[in-house]
Amino acid sequence: MKTETKAESLKRLSYIEGHLAGVRKMIEEDKYCVDVLKQSFAIRRALEKLEAILLDGHLHTCVVTGIRDGREADVTAELLELYKLANK
Amino acid sequence: MKTETKAESLKRLSYIEGHLAGVRKMIEEDKYCVDVLKQSFAIRRALEKLEAILLDGHLHTCVVTGIRDGREADVTAELLELYKLANK
Amino acid sequence: MKTETKAESLKRLSYIEGHLAGVRKMIEEDKYCVDVLKQSFAIRRALEKLEAILLDGHLHTCVVTGIRDGREADVTAELLELYKLANK
Amino acid sequence: MKTETKAESLKRLSYIEGHLAGVRKMIEEDKYCVDVLKQSFAIRRALEKLEAILLDGHLHTCVVTGIRDGREADVTAELLELYKLANK
Repeated sequence: MKTETKAESLKRLSYIEGHLAGVRKMIEEDKYCVDVLKQSFAIRRALEKLEAILLDGHLHTCVVTGIRDGREADVTAELLELYKLANK
Repeated sequence: MKTETKAESLKRLSYIEGHLAGVRKMIEEDKYCVDVLKQSFAIRRALEKLEAILLDGHLHTCVVTGIRDGREADVTAELLELYKLANK
Repeated sequence: MKTETKAESLKRLSYIEGHLAGVRKMIEEDKYCVDVLKQSFAIRRALEKLEAILLDGHLHTCVVTGIRDGREADVTAELLELYKLANK
Repeated sequence: MKTETKAESLKRLSYIEGHLAGVRKMIEEDKYCVDVLKQSFAIRRALEKLEAILLDGHLHTCVVTGIRDGREADVTAELLELYKLANK
């Protein structure tokens, strides 16, 4: 993983952890379900942003190198699998 | 929030927190991006399950009471908003 | 189904049908895959808007009536099932 | 577009068109909203399968060629954009 991808991912992750702690507090304090639901949606969107960072790093490193090294069958199969899993 | 919904939600949440801690460890230890991505997808699916528990509780309490009390305009508008937000 | 919901749904549907015909044309004419993909994403979003119209109609009619008639167990179970299916 | 990708895409598309015609009939005949909604969800999933075919073709042709030709910046930026758009 590139240093930059790693740093950005960990920053994102800290944000998500804080957000999740907020959801725990809301549930423990019996906040209105609809408000808790909206926060859970927001955490999923934050995870999607984390995934975009990780995917960006993956594309620029492993994918480019793999294709240049003649492993395009593996690389493309893996990307397709990720696409399918992303929204299962 | 019903006691049952609360207990089940907090249990789910503990699972999600543990899963997220696992993702942090993977990033810190420079694990393969594709594997980290798959774990992030799994956390999103776990959040969707948490949301189903919260929504179930909301439907059985606030929605039923609200409609019986003549506040169906508010209750239905809120459900539609949730539906739209869920996958934004 | 309310007359209004029906009219609005059919209008949306015509739009989606036209959009899908456009995608067929693009594939037949060997347009750039990425552009075809973007159109397919747009059709999915248009379907989500159609679904919001249908759900809105359902909430204002069957859900409200069902809960008032004491069938809240069925009505809420069905809504939860829809929520889960929507993003499977 | 590869001949194979094209043939498979058009086949998928015919299926989606038939499915969509079924939804139109259901709305015109005032079928139960919940059943119409479930069909719309199914069409979205069918579109996702069409997208997987198109993406697979794109990865094996343009992406591999692009990276070999030194245009990895463009190719990876486009893939990342697709990922973000897919679930907007």
